[in-house]
Formats: sequence, structure tokens, C-alpha cells
Amino acid sequence: MSVHTSELKSEHTRIKRAANRAVYERETVHAILDEAVVCHVGVIVDDRPIVIPTLHARVGDQLLLHGSPASRMLRMAKTSEICVTVSLIDGWVLARSALHHSVNYRSVTIVGRPEVVPKEEKVEMLDALMERLTPGRNAHLRPMTDKEIKGTSLLRMPITDAAAKVRTGPPIDDEEDYDLPIWAGVVPIITTLGPPETDPAMRMEVDIPDHVHTFRS
Amino acid sequence: MSVHTSELKSEHTRIKRAANRAVYERETVHAILDEAVVCHVGVIVDDRPIVIPTLHARVGDQLLLHGSPASRMLRMAKTSEICVTVSLIDGWVLARSALHHSVNYRSVTIVGRPEVVPKEEKVEMLDALMERLTPGRNAHLRPMTDKEIKGTSLLRMPITDAAAKVRTGPPIDDEEDYDLPIWAGVVPIITTLGPPETDPAMRMEVDIPDHVHTFRS
Repeated sequence: MSVHTSELKSEHTRIKRAANRAVYERETVHAILDEAVVCHVGVIVDDRPIVIPTLHARVGDQLLLHGSPASRMLRMAKTSEICVTVSLIDGWVLARSALHHSVNYRSVTIVGRPEVVPKEEKVEMLDALMERLTPGRNAHLRPMTDKEIKGTSLLRMPITDAAAKVRTGPPIDDEEDYDLPIWAGVVPIITTLGPPETDPAMRMEVDIPDHVHTFRS
Repeated sequence: MSVHTSELKSEHTRIKRAANRAVYERETVHAILDEAVVCHVGVIVDDRPIVIPTLHARVGDQLLLHGSPASRMLRMAKTSEICVTVSLIDGWVLARSALHHSVNYRSVTIVGRPEVVPKEEKVEMLDALMERLTPGRNAHLRPMTDKEIKGTSLLRMPITDAAAKVRTGPPIDDEEDYDLPIWAGVVPIITTLGPPETDPAMRMEVDIPDHVHTFRS
């Protein structure tokens, strides 16, 4: 999982420029954001970096960040710029020499200044967040209360300064090492969903609904 | 994936103190670090936070960070303090109301100042890194060359200021919502390894070795 650049320029500049393995297609960025369950948000607090895992959802060209962790960090931060990184790890890349080992991955990094979703758009955005995270489920739930809506932090950030990086395929070894009798290849890392586990605190029999059977599939 | 604290104190202080869902057992921290494939490293560059995914390995009470991304960042950083966060996502927690939805997860956050592994310990530490990432494989590979060793960045950081956070189990709903006829529960997220895929560029037949069949199992 290495990055190669010829010079040590500003990382932010670097993210915006072409780099090895960088992919700029909007569709790639969106697909990675949509597949990942959590993102890692970097903020500066007391002149130190903090990295917080949190749920996210892409709605159009906006990234929604839910909940208190990111919001609390932002209130404490001196700069309102944050960095959001999402990583999907697809496989172990086993090479013929130690230092050519790698992982196959897809990642997205977005930098920007998030804003608090204003009151008048909050319900719509919370519904969009729910629909993205748990498709089809919102209609089955009891409505959110005003108190809940008021007490929930929701941030959004435009997905503009974003870059995807993708590594796929077998190892890249030194030319002469291909003659060595060493097995090389990829061990895929696969993420799946297990069968739904009903809450033991259920007070009545309720069939598992379709949106759970087809959850994020 | 929320955090509850009564006051907005320094996040670094918070990490060191007890917080909801915080688990301080060394074994828990180590187990999460060992299971995770990548970590997310937060550094400050040009007064902005950057979050970089990279491979890590725990060796005893040290965290090894491999490769150029973190090293490059550190050279560019004004402060040498970093934040390393590792997250394992175990399931979707589907509650009876929208805002009690969550994910089951295990995460570790470590703050500290990494140091470059000195020349005289580098081979030993690179071997330890390989053994941790790809157990049993190093003995099958061609030895590292002096040039490779010299050209590789390896950082280590003591795992001292570390905290684990864990959420497990079914949703926690509002008391009155348990009477609603809404299915609630958990959809597990499962990470497995697929069958090894032999490099199509292999120049000879080599059986898949045992350490690949039993890879990180």
C-alpha cells in the first residue's frame, strides 16, 4: 500500500494532482464511498491529529457524516478543514520477495470544510442518510421525534477535492525473481453479510422483512 | 457509532480516560490490532489533517508502520505526534427507530510519536513485520537485499496511549418502542479469505504452500 511521488510537495496539492494509482473518475469515487461502511475522519484538536471512525453516506455529490464524534471534534478544532478517508481492502498480494508484498485496495480521500446541515433540510438529509445506509428500512420505523432530530448532529461536505486510489491484480516482482520457484499470487479478502440475528428482546413475532433479507446486496 | 462524554474536554485527555464503551485491557487492544489489515494514520501537514491508510503490525508492545506514506507525511509534518486508528466493523445494528441504528465494531486509537527504526534493528523488525503480516512466508522468499532494506521506511511507536472501543449485541431502543411490531436485530458483517489466486505470470508449477492455505487463519 505504497504511494510513489517524485517530490515531497504539499500532500493536499498531491491529492489533487495525478499520482501513481490515482483514479479521478467520479464514478469510482462514488462507488468506493457507497460500498464502505465507515470512513475515518481526521481533524486537528489541540494541535494534534485525531482520527475518528464514523458512519458516512454519499447523497449525490455530498458526503453526509453522522453523529457526535465528528461534530464534537469540529467544535474543538481550530481549523474547520477535515480529511475523510475510506478504504476497502480486497486482498493480500504475496510476492516473491518481502518488500514487494502489498494489499489490493480501493480508497478515497476527500478534503474539505464540512457544514452543519441546516435545520430546514435536516429531516430530508437524515432520511437520505437512512435510505443510503439501510435501504428500504425507514418506512418501517416509527417516525423520528422533534427531540431526536434536534439532538442529532449531521454534517455534509461537498465531494470535490476527492481522489481515489486503487490497486488490483497480482504482485509486481523484480524481473529476475520470476525465475525463482516461489509461489506468488493473491489471497482475496471477502466481506459478506451473515444471516440476520433477531433481537432477543423482541416482544412479538415479526417476520424478517424483505429489506433485511436483501440488505445492501 | 457514537461516543458519549459529559464534557467537551481535550480529545487526547478523553482517550486516556474512561469513556462509554472504552475498554482498556491490553489484550483487547492487541487482538484488534492483530486482526485488522490496515490502520488509518492521521498526521498534520500544512496545518491540515491528512488520513492515510497503511499496513501495520504489532510486535510486542510496539506498533510497526511500514512504508513510504506515513514516513513522507511525518517528514512534512510540523509536529511528530500522530494518531493511529484501527477499526473492525462487525455488523449492522437495526433498531426500531432511525436514530438508534448503529454498527457493531471494535476499534483502537493510539496517539504518540513514532520513531524511525534504527539501521541496526531494521532487518529484525522487517522480518517481524513480515512474520506478523504473512506468517510462515518469509522463509520461502529470497532474502532482502541491502538496497531494499536501505530504501524501506519503517516506523515504530509504543502502544501506550491506546484505547479500545467495542460495541456488540442487539440494538438499544427506547423502552416504549419495544412494543412496536418492527423487526430489529443485527446483520453480521463477516470478513473471510477467498481461495488463493496463483499469479498468472508464474514461470513454473509450484504447489500452493501450507502457509498460504492457512493464511492468517
